[in-house]
Amino acid sequence: MLDILNDEYYMGLALDMAAKASGQTGINPVVGCVVVKDGRIIGIGTHLKRGTGHAEVHALQMAGAEAEGATVYVTLEPCSHFGKTPPCCERIIDAKAARVVVASGDPNPEVSGKGIARLREEGIAVTVGVLEQRSQQLNEKFNKYITSRIPFVTLKTASTLDGKIASSTGDSRWVTGAIAREQVHTLRHQHEAIMVGIGTVLADDPLLNTRAAVPALDPVRIIVDSKLRLPLTARVVVDRTVRTIVMTSSQASEERRGDLEAAGIEVIVCGSGDKVDLVDGMAKLGALEIGSILLEGGGQLNGAMLEAGLIDKIILYYATKIIGGLHAPGTFTFPGYEKMADAVQLERVSVDMAGEDICVSGYPVY
Amino acid sequence: MLDILNDEYYMGLALDMAAKASGQTGINPVVGCVVVKDGRIIGIGTHLKRGTGHAEVHALQMAGAEAEGATVYVTLEPCSHFGKTPPCCERIIDAKAARVVVASGDPNPEVSGKGIARLREEGIAVTVGVLEQRSQQLNEKFNKYITSRIPFVTLKTASTLDGKIASSTGDSRWVTGAIAREQVHTLRHQHEAIMVGIGTVLADDPLLNTRAAVPALDPVRIIVDSKLRLPLTARVVVDRTVRTIVMTSSQASEERRGDLEAAGIEVIVCGSGDKVDLVDGMAKLGALEIGSILLEGGGQLNGAMLEAGLIDKIILYYATKIIGGLHAPGTFTFPGYEKMADAVQLERVSVDMAGEDICVSGYPVY
Repeated sequence: MLDILNDEYYMGLALDMAAKASGQTGINPVVGCVVVKDGRIIGIGTHLKRGTGHAEVHALQMAGAEAEGATVYVTLEPCSHFGKTPPCCERIIDAKAARVVVASGDPNPEVSGKGIARLREEGIAVTVGVLEQRSQQLNEKFNKYITSRIPFVTLKTASTLDGKIASSTGDSRWVTGAIAREQVHTLRHQHEAIMVGIGTVLADDPLLNTRAAVPALDPVRIIVDSKLRLPLTARVVVDRTVRTIVMTSSQASEERRGDLEAAGIEVIVCGSGDKVDLVDGMAKLGALEIGSILLEGGGQLNGAMLEAGLIDKIILYYATKIIGGLHAPGTFTFPGYEKMADAVQLERVSVDMAGEDICVSGYPVY
Repeated sequence: MLDILNDEYYMGLALDMAAKASGQTGINPVVGCVVVKDGRIIGIGTHLKRGTGHAEVHALQMAGAEAEGATVYVTLEPCSHFGKTPPCCERIIDAKAARVVVASGDPNPEVSGKGIARLREEGIAVTVGVLEQRSQQLNEKFNKYITSRIPFVTLKTASTLDGKIASSTGDSRWVTGAIAREQVHTLRHQHEAIMVGIGTVLADDPLLNTRAAVPALDPVRIIVDSKLRLPLTARVVVDRTVRTIVMTSSQASEERRGDLEAAGIEVIVCGSGDKVDLVDGMAKLGALEIGSILLEGGGQLNGAMLEAGLIDKIILYYATKIIGGLHAPGTFTFPGYEKMADAVQLERVSVDMAGEDICVSGYPVY
């Protein structure tokens, strides 16, 4: 469809720029900004890294003195408080912008609306809600974390059409094709952490890094390991290029814990039982500033996380094949629900092809 | 997209008409015909029922004397031999048509090409292959049966995203929504027979008929029942409105068989073992002029049919929910393949929404 020159035209660019920075702003949101005057873009900016300039600051810097009387398109309500950087509202006011267009308000209830009010106080025209839904989805991870301090968890699985993640003998190379796997590595880049069960580490000795055609960010590794069975020789222990966190239970031996900590692993005890208390664990990870997690568990961990209501988004890849196997492992291994009506429903479902595979994604409703 | 007036324009109509007759021609193909002269449609026809007039006959009848010099669009090569009705080629020649456009040749190797040759012999211009792929897919059931005398089997399942057709307690009302269920009843109308395992009959006592918003054709019922456990009080036995066939094994008791036959059931013994030999069974059903079967089995029957390479097309509905359950029944219950690379691959896969559910269909490659 041909473009139409309107507010959505420029906000779309601001959102596109923000989207490509997904994964590189830590627990900060991704934000894009476009400054427009007399029919021309005169400045663009994106927030690129936590602790560095906000999108508006970069864009107004580029615009320079021309910003006077300009329209500032920004995907998120400009901040009005001092954080790691000075408030963007004051920067916009200083630049003498005439109008500000905002995609969505700040999700943090404590500051939401304050930036908009501050701008209006200075006589700047403010429009709110342009491409709001797209903006909110773009920052769905940030929006959850900032309001709950609990990480946003995206579950990813890859199975056959009959829901098997491996054959009855455990063979799983490969379920899906190259394009689905490339997408998964992009998801790793876009999440702060990756989470697997100890079973996966013992079976595959994975490195859990991001492998892409261009340099990419490796996620923090999180391993769920009730009994601290993680070997000191595992690649995730030996490789120290990224932070590695082990979630364990109170039954884990102090000695094993000391050995792992000496090897550079962070060990957190989750709950007081003999299994990892996942709810407690998520709160602890949140306190460690882990804002988003890509869950690539086996069926056990996937099932436990779903039962605990801790999964926010589900991305299911299906290879278009059928393997069978009564005891072949499935995508979700847990006791489940007795009534079909009690099954966990996904909402906002989308279905796409990923090369020769099918990709279904949605948001569970608990 | 706007229409373009060309051969595809008229052939498209002929195919549309043929498609709507799917299910009502028994082991005959569905065929549509459009007669065009001087820029106008002057006759249309569809083969409606086995033993009655072919599409060309109906269309030429409507065209009358005007057919002289006309173009005849027909979805399948006109027959040149006497079957239940006189050969259509002679009817076209008698009508003095100037040109015949055919979507696809007769799939029966014994007669393929003979109709086209006969028309050309009489100086009629013949074009072959217009919308050929669509025509071949439309008659995929007929094409298999006419060349192999083995029924074309379409498997249909409905499961959760984790591949469960019921909960761990057996609850399956409902997996999918209203639109998927309406599509399934349309599939029943479009197949000559429906096939289930005795487990389904014992569990649900289904009628296995077609329930639609308008009058529909009920399929012949086929029940796979190695030990003849089918009760005489089952609805499929008591209701005699359609033919009911029970496939059994040589271990079934003669007395039970006599009782069922006395109740109007056709019993066929498949193979000499203590289980139903499905390969032998399909050949026997083919000999009984069952050209197409909609398989709505549980996991056991689905798995056995897939393992035996007897499924031609697979239609999988997925409700967008996750139910879990280690022992909740899956879509395919069979030992399966040890290597992921040996899984049964589907080709020509299509993915569509069916209301709120996802519909994946494809053709297994054995």
